[in-house]
Amino acid sequence: MRLAVPVTVRWSDLDAYGHVNNASLLTLLEEARVAAFWAGGPEGSPATAIIDAGHGATSITVIARQEAEYLGQIPHHREPLIVDTWIGQMGGASMLVCYEVRSPDRDELYARATTTVVMLDASTGRPRRLTAVEREAWAPYVEEPIEFRRR
Amino acid sequence: MRLAVPVTVRWSDLDAYGHVNNASLLTLLEEARVAAFWAGGPEGSPATAIIDAGHGATSITVIARQEAEYLGQIPHHREPLIVDTWIGQMGGASMLVCYEVRSPDRDELYARATTTVVMLDASTGRPRRLTAVEREAWAPYVEEPIEFRRR
Amino acid sequence: MRLAVPVTVRWSDLDAYGHVNNASLLTLLEEARVAAFWAGGPEGSPATAIIDAGHGATSITVIARQEAEYLGQIPHHREPLIVDTWIGQMGGASMLVCYEVRSPDRDELYARATTTVVMLDASTGRPRRLTAVEREAWAPYVEEPIEFRRR
Amino acid sequence: MRLAVPVTVRWSDLDAYGHVNNASLLTLLEEARVAAFWAGGPEGSPATAIIDAGHGATSITVIARQEAEYLGQIPHHREPLIVDTWIGQMGGASMLVCYEVRSPDRDELYARATTTVVMLDASTGRPRRLTAVEREAWAPYVEEPIEFRRR
Repeated sequence: MRLAVPVTVRWSDLDAYGHVNNASLLTLLEEARVAAFWAGGPEGSPATAIIDAGHGATSITVIARQEAEYLGQIPHHREPLIVDTWIGQMGGASMLVCYEVRSPDRDELYARATTTVVMLDASTGRPRRLTAVEREAWAPYVEEPIEFRRR
Repeated sequence: MRLAVPVTVRWSDLDAYGHVNNASLLTLLEEARVAAFWAGGPEGSPATAIIDAGHGATSITVIARQEAEYLGQIPHHREPLIVDTWIGQMGGASMLVCYEVRSPDRDELYARATTTVVMLDASTGRPRRLTAVEREAWAPYVEEPIEFRRR
Repeated sequence: MRLAVPVTVRWSDLDAYGHVNNASLLTLLEEARVAAFWAGGPEGSPATAIIDAGHGATSITVIARQEAEYLGQIPHHREPLIVDTWIGQMGGASMLVCYEVRSPDRDELYARATTTVVMLDASTGRPRRLTAVEREAWAPYVEEPIEFRRR
Repeated sequence: MRLAVPVTVRWSDLDAYGHVNNASLLTLLEEARVAAFWAGGPEGSPATAIIDAGHGATSITVIARQEAEYLGQIPHHREPLIVDTWIGQMGGASMLVCYEVRSPDRDELYARATTTVVMLDASTGRPRRLTAVEREAWAPYVEEPIEFRRR
């Protein structure tokens, strides 16, 4: 199952060409990821924190890998983009998050991307295993990972 | 031959974990790419514009693909990071830019990444072929592309 | 009359202290301003463009002045902040936009700020007068400007 | 005495109008401030930390106020902008940092701005007084504060 996460483009995400900057796209993906998998997320999202922001956190998440194909230039939209978000793979201490970024009406596919997220124990800074609670919460969102075309 | 491009981390590149945000890293790569291959660049850089910013430009560049491996968390540094930058491949209308991001003293390798840059004709918005002048200017900077370990 | 504009904080707006960065706050204000006064805005907003983004624009807007008082540190919120937005003054070629930034539940006032926006003719780059249509569209949103306490 | 701090504009600081975004200007000011007054700064800067980033900090700094006049649109420059930076006033627990942002050749004055920085005790989150060491380190950099013209 995929989560359709609305993510709003900001005016400042545009660069001097008038399109969403390539690095800003990764910020949009981050917003989708946080909204999808953070505890207390929107209706229909898995109710387990993978990110505990701030100083009291017992675990933090880091990015080990990212890959993105940009299929079209993204103009400013008043309506939020739709970022279809799912889990392509669950590993021991990591998960592969997959995204397809679409126009608000879903007619255009702007980008496809993946992020490898690694869970760290905040006190030791070392990878920690996904818990049973996390695995169970996220299991419904596991689908086939993206296969990139232009590698 | 690789260009060693100094790129300064900004305080605002850090996120709430106190490390350079994953999307900000792509901004740092963009800075390295612009500094390395823009006309009038630093001594030792190829003297041919690949980016003509602004409204009078005859060609623009877009990003078709990015891939990055994050090997270590990047703290704030007062001294610039060193981004070793080279061309992994020259295609008909595109080039693969490769990067290794290192600490100011070069002792630590923080990230390895690639960007596929496509040249567009600004008037038509369609890909245009690399010119002979561009090929000649960039030829000395062509080296083996990065092979990612964790794909 | 004030427009209550919801603006979402992004994870990347936080800096290493875990709070919204001071420069990011201005980006949030920009989002409120664009949402409030851009043509085709949300229900209840004035239906006249002050910003025509992109190359075909006949007029552009520039910022001449900004002033902001930060009253409290803004943590990450899942729900959008509420930015109360109004026009403190309409000049010949400019307007003073006023903002109060509040927590999602409105209980906390995080910041008060003003922006002086100047309309430029895109072809000449010179200030142009507000049109009658613009004045009429914005008139209902004119209220007393903010008086800063700590000047 | 003023510190002339070089600050590099990034491609991503430009917005869709091709000029440095108004919020990005505050990031440039932040870079000037950090470079000028952070311990271990460049030759000629006061050798006392006002910002101790990260979790081990004993004090943090917050921004209480900012004010900026934008006098000209800032295009992309390959050479760093020069940000003349000084202290307009030292209070009990705060200081007023003043800036003039100039083109690399100093011929153009792009912006004038001030920031009120407040020192907080990291453990209590409350303002703490400037220490004698800080006052002594910063005394040479105190000059008349900026007087804004368009208030």
